[in-house]
Amino acid sequence: MSIHEECGIFGICRGTLGDVALDTYFGLQALQHRGQESCGIAVNHDGLFHLFTDAGVVSEAISPGTISMLGQGNMAIGHVRYGSDHERGRINAQPLVVDHFKGRMALANNGSLVNYLELRTQYEKQGSIFHTTSDVEVISCAITRERLTAPSLEEAVNRAMHRLKGSYSLVIMTPKKLIAVRDPLGFKPLCYGQCLDGTYVVASESCALDAVGARLVRDIRPGEILVFDREEMRSLLDHCGSAPAKVCVFEYIYFARPDSVMDKVSVHHARLKAGEVLAKEHPVEADIVIGVPDSGIDAAIGYARASGIPYGLGFIKNKYIGRTFIAPRQMERETGVRIKLNPIAEEVAGKRVVLVDDSIVRGTTSKKIVRLLREAGAREVHMRVTAPPFINPCYYGTDIKSRDSLIACLYPLEKIADIIGADSLGYISVEGVRSIAGNMSPGFCTACFDGDYPTQAPQSVERDRFSKRLMRVGGTR
Amino acid sequence: MSIHEECGIFGICRGTLGDVALDTYFGLQALQHRGQESCGIAVNHDGLFHLFTDAGVVSEAISPGTISMLGQGNMAIGHVRYGSDHERGRINAQPLVVDHFKGRMALANNGSLVNYLELRTQYEKQGSIFHTTSDVEVISCAITRERLTAPSLEEAVNRAMHRLKGSYSLVIMTPKKLIAVRDPLGFKPLCYGQCLDGTYVVASESCALDAVGARLVRDIRPGEILVFDREEMRSLLDHCGSAPAKVCVFEYIYFARPDSVMDKVSVHHARLKAGEVLAKEHPVEADIVIGVPDSGIDAAIGYARASGIPYGLGFIKNKYIGRTFIAPRQMERETGVRIKLNPIAEEVAGKRVVLVDDSIVRGTTSKKIVRLLREAGAREVHMRVTAPPFINPCYYGTDIKSRDSLIACLYPLEKIADIIGADSLGYISVEGVRSIAGNMSPGFCTACFDGDYPTQAPQSVERDRFSKRLMRVGGTR
Amino acid sequence: MSIHEECGIFGICRGTLGDVALDTYFGLQALQHRGQESCGIAVNHDGLFHLFTDAGVVSEAISPGTISMLGQGNMAIGHVRYGSDHERGRINAQPLVVDHFKGRMALANNGSLVNYLELRTQYEKQGSIFHTTSDVEVISCAITRERLTAPSLEEAVNRAMHRLKGSYSLVIMTPKKLIAVRDPLGFKPLCYGQCLDGTYVVASESCALDAVGARLVRDIRPGEILVFDREEMRSLLDHCGSAPAKVCVFEYIYFARPDSVMDKVSVHHARLKAGEVLAKEHPVEADIVIGVPDSGIDAAIGYARASGIPYGLGFIKNKYIGRTFIAPRQMERETGVRIKLNPIAEEVAGKRVVLVDDSIVRGTTSKKIVRLLREAGAREVHMRVTAPPFINPCYYGTDIKSRDSLIACLYPLEKIADIIGADSLGYISVEGVRSIAGNMSPGFCTACFDGDYPTQAPQSVERDRFSKRLMRVGGTR
Amino acid sequence: MSIHEECGIFGICRGTLGDVALDTYFGLQALQHRGQESCGIAVNHDGLFHLFTDAGVVSEAISPGTISMLGQGNMAIGHVRYGSDHERGRINAQPLVVDHFKGRMALANNGSLVNYLELRTQYEKQGSIFHTTSDVEVISCAITRERLTAPSLEEAVNRAMHRLKGSYSLVIMTPKKLIAVRDPLGFKPLCYGQCLDGTYVVASESCALDAVGARLVRDIRPGEILVFDREEMRSLLDHCGSAPAKVCVFEYIYFARPDSVMDKVSVHHARLKAGEVLAKEHPVEADIVIGVPDSGIDAAIGYARASGIPYGLGFIKNKYIGRTFIAPRQMERETGVRIKLNPIAEEVAGKRVVLVDDSIVRGTTSKKIVRLLREAGAREVHMRVTAPPFINPCYYGTDIKSRDSLIACLYPLEKIADIIGADSLGYISVEGVRSIAGNMSPGFCTACFDGDYPTQAPQSVERDRFSKRLMRVGGTR
Repeated sequence: MSIHEECGIFGICRGTLGDVALDTYFGLQALQHRGQESCGIAVNHDGLFHLFTDAGVVSEAISPGTISMLGQGNMAIGHVRYGSDHERGRINAQPLVVDHFKGRMALANNGSLVNYLELRTQYEKQGSIFHTTSDVEVISCAITRERLTAPSLEEAVNRAMHRLKGSYSLVIMTPKKLIAVRDPLGFKPLCYGQCLDGTYVVASESCALDAVGARLVRDIRPGEILVFDREEMRSLLDHCGSAPAKVCVFEYIYFARPDSVMDKVSVHHARLKAGEVLAKEHPVEADIVIGVPDSGIDAAIGYARASGIPYGLGFIKNKYIGRTFIAPRQMERETGVRIKLNPIAEEVAGKRVVLVDDSIVRGTTSKKIVRLLREAGAREVHMRVTAPPFINPCYYGTDIKSRDSLIACLYPLEKIADIIGADSLGYISVEGVRSIAGNMSPGFCTACFDGDYPTQAPQSVERDRFSKRLMRVGGTR
Repeated sequence: MSIHEECGIFGICRGTLGDVALDTYFGLQALQHRGQESCGIAVNHDGLFHLFTDAGVVSEAISPGTISMLGQGNMAIGHVRYGSDHERGRINAQPLVVDHFKGRMALANNGSLVNYLELRTQYEKQGSIFHTTSDVEVISCAITRERLTAPSLEEAVNRAMHRLKGSYSLVIMTPKKLIAVRDPLGFKPLCYGQCLDGTYVVASESCALDAVGARLVRDIRPGEILVFDREEMRSLLDHCGSAPAKVCVFEYIYFARPDSVMDKVSVHHARLKAGEVLAKEHPVEADIVIGVPDSGIDAAIGYARASGIPYGLGFIKNKYIGRTFIAPRQMERETGVRIKLNPIAEEVAGKRVVLVDDSIVRGTTSKKIVRLLREAGAREVHMRVTAPPFINPCYYGTDIKSRDSLIACLYPLEKIADIIGADSLGYISVEGVRSIAGNMSPGFCTACFDGDYPTQAPQSVERDRFSKRLMRVGGTR
Repeated sequence: MSIHEECGIFGICRGTLGDVALDTYFGLQALQHRGQESCGIAVNHDGLFHLFTDAGVVSEAISPGTISMLGQGNMAIGHVRYGSDHERGRINAQPLVVDHFKGRMALANNGSLVNYLELRTQYEKQGSIFHTTSDVEVISCAITRERLTAPSLEEAVNRAMHRLKGSYSLVIMTPKKLIAVRDPLGFKPLCYGQCLDGTYVVASESCALDAVGARLVRDIRPGEILVFDREEMRSLLDHCGSAPAKVCVFEYIYFARPDSVMDKVSVHHARLKAGEVLAKEHPVEADIVIGVPDSGIDAAIGYARASGIPYGLGFIKNKYIGRTFIAPRQMERETGVRIKLNPIAEEVAGKRVVLVDDSIVRGTTSKKIVRLLREAGAREVHMRVTAPPFINPCYYGTDIKSRDSLIACLYPLEKIADIIGADSLGYISVEGVRSIAGNMSPGFCTACFDGDYPTQAPQSVERDRFSKRLMRVGGTR
Repeated sequence: MSIHEECGIFGICRGTLGDVALDTYFGLQALQHRGQESCGIAVNHDGLFHLFTDAGVVSEAISPGTISMLGQGNMAIGHVRYGSDHERGRINAQPLVVDHFKGRMALANNGSLVNYLELRTQYEKQGSIFHTTSDVEVISCAITRERLTAPSLEEAVNRAMHRLKGSYSLVIMTPKKLIAVRDPLGFKPLCYGQCLDGTYVVASESCALDAVGARLVRDIRPGEILVFDREEMRSLLDHCGSAPAKVCVFEYIYFARPDSVMDKVSVHHARLKAGEVLAKEHPVEADIVIGVPDSGIDAAIGYARASGIPYGLGFIKNKYIGRTFIAPRQMERETGVRIKLNPIAEEVAGKRVVLVDDSIVRGTTSKKIVRLLREAGAREVHMRVTAPPFINPCYYGTDIKSRDSLIACLYPLEKIADIIGADSLGYISVEGVRSIAGNMSPGFCTACFDGDYPTQAPQSVERDRFSKRLMRVGGTR
């Protein structure tokens, strides 16, 4: 529940002028689950860029007036961002627009470099100054330095990729081109599609293509550079296939929307499958299977189907709770307060309940949920989890806290069941989670579960050498 | 989908000063589904009233700063309101605070008087001026006129009830008392509960009691006046039992939250039951049962259980879509745009689908949803509806449009199926819907289905004699 | 400096639809000095009313979007309001729009009834409820009760004026007419003018006519009722001439804008004259005459002209200081802080300075200003004041504090000079102030100086029997 | 009237933590006349920076909440900015905070480099990317590159000054120091002062020192670098005295506040003197001298004193007009509309009027003002201008439009008098304007009048090679 993906990105490229800002708005709304801290749109109107970024969710930050000021264009890119520090987010909001010797470009990124600090220090020693603490500014430096000698921006990107280590999925907009890039290991998803009128659309997830009426063509391949301009699409494959893909498995378990298809695998089906695997790995006699809304629902249905135990609605989630600080602060107030999740007592009273959730991080939320079920009269609560225990930090963009706060690092399984108050507890196995894509599996990164990191570790986890000292307290820059 | 309940009300009464504004905030968030047009809170701090009302939903309209300015109190009441006219809503936002000869009172109401126009005209002829077009102002007049001679406000309410015809559930706050009132036919729900520390809470639905940690004690009886003050609770029953209750059945089918219990009946269970009844009344051979989110989900599970056909997730609803005018306008843009609801193609492709929804009003939404399923590959779509066809206007607060826009008034069943593109269509019968509460049934109003109105009809449906000419375009008064 | 007029009012009546909201906006900006607490506009579009009111000044509260939502119309009225209690102001913001038996009307008022409490109590005993604590609601009641039997609204106003005691200047808008009313003693100014296209404009001051391109025709006579409709203008004179006019002399000394002409007297010239009178009544040897910006400037020029001492610029007033609470709170911080007023040291250093201001209320501001001059090097400071000492409360709308805070009630002249640090102090005499209009004098109320009240005193100064207990903490109603 | 200074800057350095954000707020309000497009504050709390920038004026953009979030600190810098392009201003808002190899710094600048394009191109060729189109980013690059080898930031500044050509007055804040810098020709003003508690304050004008209770110590010398840290102040004078100062004379005529003292000369006295010079250079028989508010007032008094013609108040300026787009658009609406300036008819009717203004740029404003006087009955209007005709572009930060829009480039004197409708027209001579500081004259730049540029001309006036293509349409970055 408290693990968050860093970002969602979106790009659109038309043959003629059109409502690209509005399309990007809808695309970002479809990707909103990937980041609610800040959002932004950059529109390209025949080479003139219009930019808007702000803190907050798309529907609150971007008004109809903003869409209208962004105006028509032939291209646009957009970004939604997650971050733990609200005010720092204002500084790191994307798209980032920079000028370099050969022109202007706008970038939006999803990912995390493991050699951020190395690269930044190297550029600083050459006289560069930095305005943000975001990867995308370092990526901009890497690209623009190559661009001094490379014959085109895509070739500069191609050369810069030799320097970038870690995860990144990028959309880059120049006055004339839209470029989509995915890192060679394919950590983060990225796909493209096409509308009936030929408009190309790039997005982190296919649900954003659906939102603008585009048909999914295919995923960007790990390592691929796709260049869109009005007439044509070109693919640079120099970085493809050098190593097996390492797609983040947690995208399927938790981050992505169930109606997305990523690397040819339906997210909903992967979750159904995870529920089925759990039913086989951790069967239990029970009267009803319920999921923790929203991301536990699919797997609960899968568990119910595989086990034959009836599926039921256990909780109502209040969809009107805002993101103001009232809500979270208040959640702590007292145990009995059921502001966000309220159990349906009639559905669980007197029953043996299988409770399916996507993960247990610190255990505090699970503990509250189990208690709510008991107060509603559940006779037994058997918790089943569709992610294996987290025991390693993620260096590729997933905000998994330090080991000290990971309950799975601190206690054995039985103790955890005891802490959260469950009658039994079963995690899916690492092998199990590797199997949820069936024979379509793209190759997964499971480092947070098994420590098998596909790249070097970062020089320092603490990239905040500078940013610690700067906070933006609102307003505009 | 486009039928809306008028309002939700909330009241709290403590023995000592406390965070009654914050409790009301959480209570209103739990009732937010009952009205998103305007909201308001009135706090009573030892007789000093602090008032806030605004357009919009609770989480956007009421900031932490507002909660803090409302301050501590020993009582508070709150209101969320639905209305079709956004700007008129600013004028009619509640609570309404009025001064009369004997003092001050704040009121919040859910319901609709059938003799509004009669009463208003009568008071105008006696020199009264009106600032709003809301029932609650007429109710205030009725009460304060009785208060000129009645020994107490509750007795004034008791006498005024002889004049009020139609539906109303009221909370009234005076400097010293909190009074809860439900009309003699009990059209609209109203219940009360108690916190561990003795604090009394009144709310339209029990889910709002849960949200503030109060335990449901019981429903306010149709016709009952409950008076809370610091030490005691008194009940006036003069208007009780004169006629059988006529609780709005649509509260169970659509308005209320599934985790609420109203008049002793679980809303979730009533919906499960409606799905089961539908499965018996309109069986079909199919591969999967899906519900239209959110209010069709419970009944779809009920249909699946009764029919043995597997339940599945058919749609993902984007919970981040704001209420700005961008969204609705855009929904019309083109058929292929799936901004709010996106089907999970893998779940329905090649299958015979039973699609369960709560109602069909104009048929346009149903038509779009059926088309989305077909585009996602569904082989057959069998629509099942948990409300009988609407063929009569509602005079008691439910916003059912004129007959001209009701598809069930215009076409026979087969034609409707044809229009929305379904392979078959089945509505629950009126008898079926009467049975969804089992033997706990409180007595239902089903006038919109069968024309059996429990009161006189209003003198004129057109109450807007004056209000047509006034719109508030924002700002404060 | 800390005495404030209650309100400014504006009305416009065209033969055809036009930008009446925008005209009212400009008219209210011209009257902004008469009240900065709240503002509002009501537009009449062939009988359909659009209303906007909010806290704050016109340029901040009323956006271009609001003007556009108010739309075109054939009539409009507007109001700016001063009040000491910011939040209560939200409830009392005008125009007030009310419905009565014969229709709808919008009202805006400048003034204060001395029999407010009597009238309100009488209406409450007849069953009326009140939503505000504003005179204009009681005036509405008085008018609408007469309207039950009177043949027209203007006749109802005519009859109601027999009941209203005290000061009031009103604009009333009905679906078809604009009515302007001035109380029989003419306490508050009110004039009308006409544009080249025949449009009629009513305003508290002629500077608002100038702002919309209207030519001043004449003042509304004390006691007059002027009725404008598309074709014609009618005057009802039943209440005229029954008593000599009692125009507030403080309008000329302080409230009004120097470029206004009121009751045929130029405000600027009246102030020049006040300076000349002061120069005669309180001559002094000095090197320079300076005025306290802005309202002391005109009289300083008059003093300089009459005395032959050169006029100079003594202070720069920061026109960018906002009305946020930062500024006033901070003004207290320390003596040396010169945020709002900064002396021009080069102009006063080493000189004997005559300092002209419009009034001394509590003396604290004067004390600060004198100290600033001394710190800037002034050798002597001779204070001259264009208002006689305030020693009596005003019951007609001027916010003069209780005697306890009036320095002139507490100390003799020499002591006051001592307290504020001036080398000499001279107030204009009551006879002097009566002479500032020359032979054009309309007849002045000078009760605050000499206690000669032209009406009964109010039953109770404390009208806030109810309102003490209600505060609106923001938001909309 | 339509010529604008680029910016105002402010800095404060305390020995201990204190309310530096609030002091900067008041300092910026005192400098608000130097730029109303954007504003910003950066606070340094023992090395932790808090930043706020936004579009708009200080009192609207910076709320009490922002001041409180900026928190306490031991240093702060602030900036107000003028720019002709509102949205581009969001990107160029200052202070700019950048990270470089040796740490972090915040900068605020007033001025304009003539070699901006040269420097930017050079840095871009070395791989630098740019986020803004502001001089201050190029200055940052110049400084940080030197910092790679210089032993301290002040030494890096010292070295970088060899590269910077044109006008700049800078405040630079590092975690430990506050540095103030003025270009060697001293185009833009910069002074410092001290509070009683030892706190150092730096500001563009001395009126900002007054606003925070600091006493003016002296001006920063042209070419001087002043370094403040907690204990001490150091001065680097390597760039001082290499050339005679070239202070912008227009600061005295128009930009600066009359209560400021710049380079030892009182602005008010310089303007009085300009009026006196005009009276000698262009005498006329007349009845009254009036000034165009606000910047013509001082010179009008000077003209009156020197000529013996009485000084009078001719216009009232509405100080409540906001900066919303309603006002300017509307100003064009029709001639008769007197929203911003209204003549006092009684003061000018039938008289021969000397009208003093600070400049004539395009002539349209002067034409309107003369017409207003004639409509108010003025018999003759003699216009006198305290600036010589503009006939050359300014490269140092003053927004003088292209020659095509300068009326003095297009027509001879008589024709201009004719166009604006004046009976006579007199500009001060270039010699006259050089004399307004008397024998205290710091040495003036008068290039806009006489073409005597003290530096090379810029490589290209069109610096907007890139920025033309980027606009920020609101929101935050």
